[in-house]
Amino acid sequence: MSRTAYVNGEYLPLDQARVPVMDRGFLFADGIYEVAAVLGGRLVDNAGHLARLARSLSEIGIDNPHTVEEWVRIETDLVARNELAEGLVYLQVTRGVAERDFSFPAAGTPATVVAFTQAKTITNNPLAETGAKVVTVPDLRWKRRDIKSVALLAQVLAKQAASEAGAAEAFMVEDGAITEGSSSTAFIVTRDGTIVTRPLSNALLPGITRRAVIALATEFGLRLQERLFSVEELHGAAEAFYTSASAFVMPVVSVDGRTLGDGRPGAVARRLRELYFTFAESRD
Amino acid sequence: MSRTAYVNGEYLPLDQARVPVMDRGFLFADGIYEVAAVLGGRLVDNAGHLARLARSLSEIGIDNPHTVEEWVRIETDLVARNELAEGLVYLQVTRGVAERDFSFPAAGTPATVVAFTQAKTITNNPLAETGAKVVTVPDLRWKRRDIKSVALLAQVLAKQAASEAGAAEAFMVEDGAITEGSSSTAFIVTRDGTIVTRPLSNALLPGITRRAVIALATEFGLRLQERLFSVEELHGAAEAFYTSASAFVMPVVSVDGRTLGDGRPGAVARRLRELYFTFAESRD
Repeated sequence: MSRTAYVNGEYLPLDQARVPVMDRGFLFADGIYEVAAVLGGRLVDNAGHLARLARSLSEIGIDNPHTVEEWVRIETDLVARNELAEGLVYLQVTRGVAERDFSFPAAGTPATVVAFTQAKTITNNPLAETGAKVVTVPDLRWKRRDIKSVALLAQVLAKQAASEAGAAEAFMVEDGAITEGSSSTAFIVTRDGTIVTRPLSNALLPGITRRAVIALATEFGLRLQERLFSVEELHGAAEAFYTSASAFVMPVVSVDGRTLGDGRPGAVARRLRELYFTFAESRD
Repeated sequence: MSRTAYVNGEYLPLDQARVPVMDRGFLFADGIYEVAAVLGGRLVDNAGHLARLARSLSEIGIDNPHTVEEWVRIETDLVARNELAEGLVYLQVTRGVAERDFSFPAAGTPATVVAFTQAKTITNNPLAETGAKVVTVPDLRWKRRDIKSVALLAQVLAKQAASEAGAAEAFMVEDGAITEGSSSTAFIVTRDGTIVTRPLSNALLPGITRRAVIALATEFGLRLQERLFSVEELHGAAEAFYTSASAFVMPVVSVDGRTLGDGRPGAVARRLRELYFTFAESRD
């Protein structure tokens, strides 16, 4: 089946989905994106993603081109048209098409809206059975990492470094502390069983899955601290895992080539992964 | 006359110049660009721009899709087809079109090449007569500013802050020192007549116009230091100016609302602007 994408009000075959070269997303990375998981044909925690989309757009001064209801209709239309049972819906909004100039275009220039789906194995992801390898890399990103912009070159280079090392994810390091994964939030479990993740700030994205996992950990009586943790703490942790809209909760079994614990997914990560699936199946 | 753009080997009307939404330039800012001035129908210091393009591509692991001769042919074809006497040629190379995934696509995925021209008044730019206003803003950019990537959102926000303040350019500040302009290199002239600009590093772009202006200053016996300078030094400077491929040498007459000197373009900036025009007219 050929995939169907959405561009500015039109549904069309993905290979015909194009944007002008003068689009500010292409020329300036002047745009915002979101990714929501689809499980059993239903969107997961979608209200959180759409709220973050609205916030990111507002932070860079792009008017949100759609109401929540309109966004949901685009997403559910794409899920239906692509007969998507499990995978992702991707949304991108840019500041539109205008003569190339760093300053914002004239008020009233319509935003560009692009959306598409990706089929992806989430429930039976074999990586969750074996656990993921991660490497640490310097965090090269800009200072407003709380904004989910398409200026993703630093994240691309980080993920590529992971791929070249045979790892699934790169954890980024700044001033000796882990900020987050290249496309995920990083967690450790200390040897006394405390779950640790960095508190929110401009230095990291406010993860939607992160938020749900923290709420679940708290609800189910797991100890959790929001504080910085160092590369050394990561290397010496009892467990590590990362969260994202597509990986859900992914156990980490090695860091920079060193095995964590017994080299198998840890009990806390496995428990949170189960809890998150239960949450995801109940929540859109 | 409708403008002609270049996309992957084809010359076509600009309004038909499009890229797939799956282009990594659009999704990830995974691309590099260059801008060269055109004066009297001839490219200015173009070898420097093409050398920097090659270096930027190499730094992020994109194979340069063209030889210097091929690039020059694309540029001169566009100048001719658009009958461009004065303005810019813009080149962009991205890592190509592939299913969305942060890691690099399979080896052999063709790069996307886009190019177009912009008519622009360079010689009789009225701003050079009155001098430009600048404002200082925090430098929010990533850590590899020596790479001329299209991940330009921080620069867009900086330039917009300048526009909203009625200024032509924003000088970006990190740790109390000026790094560079949002799309230019920043210079001051101290009260003892020394030209000062920041030395090259990962913190700023190796400006092609910067390099020529430094060479000209040295050749003509002007005192010049490459060192950091602070916001306070800028505010108290005898003169300031900025350089770029399109502004050439632009005198600055006010910073953050404070008038510099007598509020008119300074003698050193005017002299360097003249020297640069002479250089530009002789060099491609």
